[in-house]
Amino acid sequence: MRDEFRTDLNIVSQLLVDMAEAVRVAMRQATRALLAADRQAAEGVIARDAEIDSLYRHVEERAGDLLVRQAPVASDLRTVVTALHVAADLERMGDLADHVAKTALRRHPSPAVPAELRGVFTDMAGVADRIAGKIAAVLSKPDATLAAELDRDDDAMDDLHRELFAVLLSDDWPYGVETGIDGALLGRFYERYADHAVNAGRHVVYLVTGEPVTG
Amino acid sequence: MRDEFRTDLNIVSQLLVDMAEAVRVAMRQATRALLAADRQAAEGVIARDAEIDSLYRHVEERAGDLLVRQAPVASDLRTVVTALHVAADLERMGDLADHVAKTALRRHPSPAVPAELRGVFTDMAGVADRIAGKIAAVLSKPDATLAAELDRDDDAMDDLHRELFAVLLSDDWPYGVETGIDGALLGRFYERYADHAVNAGRHVVYLVTGEPVTG
Repeated sequence: MRDEFRTDLNIVSQLLVDMAEAVRVAMRQATRALLAADRQAAEGVIARDAEIDSLYRHVEERAGDLLVRQAPVASDLRTVVTALHVAADLERMGDLADHVAKTALRRHPSPAVPAELRGVFTDMAGVADRIAGKIAAVLSKPDATLAAELDRDDDAMDDLHRELFAVLLSDDWPYGVETGIDGALLGRFYERYADHAVNAGRHVVYLVTGEPVTG
Repeated sequence: MRDEFRTDLNIVSQLLVDMAEAVRVAMRQATRALLAADRQAAEGVIARDAEIDSLYRHVEERAGDLLVRQAPVASDLRTVVTALHVAADLERMGDLADHVAKTALRRHPSPAVPAELRGVFTDMAGVADRIAGKIAAVLSKPDATLAAELDRDDDAMDDLHRELFAVLLSDDWPYGVETGIDGALLGRFYERYADHAVNAGRHVVYLVTGEPVTG
């Protein structure tokens, strides 16, 4: 029974690692679509989002099946419930990469992001990628220290988000409303992507330490 | 054992109903803050968000405690896991009302929304309120029909969201970038609020019918 539970749980964990890697690649490609006006990259992200959704359904099915067959208790049960929370965050991260790709596609072949914003979006994408990498690592090998680093990464993202708005709202912004709105929404997509990653990280911390998720 | 499970579950259900009612009132007040530049209403929403977060933690603690003490299986277990999903959606709806209130506050005493957008935001707020009311009703008395109606409400919200962007991006938009960005972000807050409500509704459908959540 115990061995069977472990086997089932390993399958769920592997699906989560697959999801984390997929949402990392998705946001990388979405950024490429955005900054290089790369249509193929954008279409790749949209196709990938369907795969991520499918992985999510697999996690839900596997976890549901595991709960019913094994009726785990205490820490085993907590592990399964946490896996479901983490999967929901990862699924949403895939959606946000998809939103970035669709914004790039809507403006294609023009770039959705003007020269003044390339720097801040490159930095936001860098933080997003670092965070997504840590989630994949933490899921492969739960590590409260690494998960706690995510809070600092999230602060870095918040700073970049403020920097973005300072540019968008400066008196000499030359690009008009549509480009301003795209910039603001894109900024929000990266920021929310980071938030969900941090949230997933907190769930992993909870798993390791038993301390409840706060904030 | 069975009676004890029911008692515990009723406490969790009641907390969810309280959360649903609180996020409904929060978005109502946030809309008032937005359309009437009402500072007190905005501050009320922000205070209320802390209460909603606290209710969320209560749901997590109660559900965790219930899982460990009662070790429910099959449909009972599904009920508890669903409650956790629904609580996460409701918590996020509270955050979105909070974002609307903070936008209103940032612009106070000026209105954050110009005359041209009052109509569409009034309508979005109306749909949001209707949806939140249905969630509270569905939680009090699970009803797949009512939950399915949420999809139609969500379509209405999407139509309003498109209408909003048509105004924001029209050639004769006279208000500049900052007001345009506020309008776009506010639109997204209402639209995400509705999405989370629909998501919560789908979880309730799953509970009633056993059909998995899709879309």
